[in-house]
Amino acid sequence: MANKPSIPKGTRDFTPQEMARRNYIFDTIRSVFRLYGFQQIETPAMENLSTLMGKYGEEGDKLLFKILNSGDWKQGITGEQFLNSSIPQLTNKVSEKGLRYDLTVPFARFVVQNREKIQFPFKRYQIQPVWRADRPQRGRYREFYQCDVDVIGTDSLLSELELIQIVEEVYRRLGIRVCLHLNNRKILAGIAEVIGAPDKLTDITVAIDKLDKIGLDNVNQELREKGLSDKSIERLQPILAMSGSNEDKLRTIAEVLAASETGRKGVEETKSVLELCEQTGVALNIELDLTLARGLNYYTGAIFEVKALDVEMGSITGGGRYDNLTGIFGMPGVSGVGISFGADRIYDVLNQLDLYPQTSQEQTQVLFAHFGEAERAYCLKWAKQLREAGINTEVYPEICKIKKQMNYADQKQIPFVAIAGGDEMQNDTVMLKNMQTGEQEEVDTTTLIKNIRILRI
Amino acid sequence: MANKPSIPKGTRDFTPQEMARRNYIFDTIRSVFRLYGFQQIETPAMENLSTLMGKYGEEGDKLLFKILNSGDWKQGITGEQFLNSSIPQLTNKVSEKGLRYDLTVPFARFVVQNREKIQFPFKRYQIQPVWRADRPQRGRYREFYQCDVDVIGTDSLLSELELIQIVEEVYRRLGIRVCLHLNNRKILAGIAEVIGAPDKLTDITVAIDKLDKIGLDNVNQELREKGLSDKSIERLQPILAMSGSNEDKLRTIAEVLAASETGRKGVEETKSVLELCEQTGVALNIELDLTLARGLNYYTGAIFEVKALDVEMGSITGGGRYDNLTGIFGMPGVSGVGISFGADRIYDVLNQLDLYPQTSQEQTQVLFAHFGEAERAYCLKWAKQLREAGINTEVYPEICKIKKQMNYADQKQIPFVAIAGGDEMQNDTVMLKNMQTGEQEEVDTTTLIKNIRILRI
Repeated sequence: MANKPSIPKGTRDFTPQEMARRNYIFDTIRSVFRLYGFQQIETPAMENLSTLMGKYGEEGDKLLFKILNSGDWKQGITGEQFLNSSIPQLTNKVSEKGLRYDLTVPFARFVVQNREKIQFPFKRYQIQPVWRADRPQRGRYREFYQCDVDVIGTDSLLSELELIQIVEEVYRRLGIRVCLHLNNRKILAGIAEVIGAPDKLTDITVAIDKLDKIGLDNVNQELREKGLSDKSIERLQPILAMSGSNEDKLRTIAEVLAASETGRKGVEETKSVLELCEQTGVALNIELDLTLARGLNYYTGAIFEVKALDVEMGSITGGGRYDNLTGIFGMPGVSGVGISFGADRIYDVLNQLDLYPQTSQEQTQVLFAHFGEAERAYCLKWAKQLREAGINTEVYPEICKIKKQMNYADQKQIPFVAIAGGDEMQNDTVMLKNMQTGEQEEVDTTTLIKNIRILRI
Repeated sequence: MANKPSIPKGTRDFTPQEMARRNYIFDTIRSVFRLYGFQQIETPAMENLSTLMGKYGEEGDKLLFKILNSGDWKQGITGEQFLNSSIPQLTNKVSEKGLRYDLTVPFARFVVQNREKIQFPFKRYQIQPVWRADRPQRGRYREFYQCDVDVIGTDSLLSELELIQIVEEVYRRLGIRVCLHLNNRKILAGIAEVIGAPDKLTDITVAIDKLDKIGLDNVNQELREKGLSDKSIERLQPILAMSGSNEDKLRTIAEVLAASETGRKGVEETKSVLELCEQTGVALNIELDLTLARGLNYYTGAIFEVKALDVEMGSITGGGRYDNLTGIFGMPGVSGVGISFGADRIYDVLNQLDLYPQTSQEQTQVLFAHFGEAERAYCLKWAKQLREAGINTEVYPEICKIKKQMNYADQKQIPFVAIAGGDEMQNDTVMLKNMQTGEQEEVDTTTLIKNIRILRI
């Protein structure tokens, strides 16, 4: 065919099978969020560019999808302006709106804009797509879903506990074994302080972050290049070499950070969070990981990252505490903490580990197949009863060969086919075929409904 | 505050309460779709403009939101071209992608592009937002959800029946009394044919469509102005004057259309659909409405519109059969039929009739309130048990006055508050307060779980 249609690079269609799997993930996450009292909000796909610009760094500004103004968008721009203005200047003239880049900035905007309607502490979740004009590549998309859960309006560490409990419960339900890496930005700030390089916090975290990949010597080399003194680097060594249990690490780091008020606060917070986990019987594998930094610079307290144990994959969930997210919109001093589940990566993990449940709520359970007009009419009555019993049911729409109808059931992975012929009509029964075992049995309505209910569990 | 943030005109934030109501609508619709074996797909928010342009008429092209190309989007455009090109020409140079305008065109594109992965007849549903650069006004938004359900790849009238059954079941579950208006494009074509004005089909349907509003005389006047002969108009009169039961109307129209093959086919199809409804006990109020035309010109068979009986409101569901939707993408001759539920209007109807259920799955059922650190730790253990029993539970995160905690429960409409003080801790109980009745009772865990389960039903 000449013009087979296509979709933009980096975007995806989701087929029914993919949607069933995605819904399984979203439904699982959502039900756990609700179990902890989080409520859903949605924000528009489009935000004013004034809301989005400058929030994700210069690179982020470029990666925003911008929407061309409606109508005569070139009005008021002279030929000279067109030729001589920079792309950002000109973009600013022809575009007022952009697609959201994440759910965090829209959330902050939502809280400030709707503060009168909100009960604080505000526990919200949000599951919506975001768009980034990234170069498309394997596993990186220009449209993807984020699943964010945040508490805003309290600095209670109980919120950190709840997010950890949510992580535990979501992955328990999904059957994925994970490790939660925990750190605290105040500890990192304390480290920078005590080694005498408080202004080098970012350089230090970036370098430390690579410890696993490039090794200690190269990390030290990088720190030297970033301008850290030999003395600072020397003081950092016990921290980088730290090992043992979370308690061991906390004890060591507490000694190292004794002179830093911020550092002590970070240790204190971390200790409290771990104690709360202990008290409430959190069985999740939690590792205090002083090399965890997380890039986003709005984090000010606990930071988290979750990795799957049985698959090589980056972080599948991450987040942290921020003290001033809504400050950018003129509402300062509101502390919050949140995490984001990466649906696409979780999807890949479940695929690789073959962990999807065999049956799906979304699936048709019975197809009625028939030999002709009268049989089809007979099937329609049966189908009605099954649907009233809550069973997803189809009647093959066309009068055609049984083979074609069976093939349809097969392709659509429908577990049961109920066939109606003359005999069955006379007996007020159908022939029920189990598509997996091939067994078939003549049954009446009550038996049919009972069988399907039992077998689909 | 100086810069209270805002969102683009015609878009909306949805608060938790609004989301709970919207989810109630979507969940109801979705569960009925599944009951009939329809499966979900999703398509990207962005489509290539080549997919979208020309599909919605000239006006539609203007109403598409276009996305500015990434990077140096003005590259290759000279100052002269900029000044002298028309807006559409220039838009074409700076934008390759647009936001989807409806779910129908992306669905057609999906079917053609994924035809190898699809089992026909393909029964799909799709619930996603669409965007239109319409002038925002009361009840008209620039971003809104559509809920579409279609069968494609069969011309069996069983599909029309199923859609009617779905309409019946969705509105039964929502508690909205409705009337389904039914017509057939072939009947309309037959009418144009027999009155001697086959080329005036659109003018006739547009005029007929206004019968309710402007009356018979004005309709005739309009037809005259559109160039219909007096003879044609005279022949149309019995059709416009038609009344009585669906059977009466069908009988009359069959006589009028006896000379038109297309017309006879339309009558035949309509009769069959009504018979199928009869056979399967459809109790829905169905009215054969020969003045129903529906604007979209891809319809070729049955057309539907659903109106609420107890609220003044336009159509809340509509659709019809199309014989060649995928033809625009090079896959001709595939017949399908579908309808679309208007979530925003249904939302308004439910609000006006006050039909939302009192309780919601999404709601927190119990808040644990406490007097201090030790009590909070005690509450955390209880909360764990309740969550394990599937009860949405919160523990107030901060140590603060009970009044503040009660106020939080009140604002968030949490039906139960469980208070733990020293006595309760000693007795291994909590004081359970019913927030509606004000009653309170000291209970143990088992009783607590049992009470909440009973009371929330």
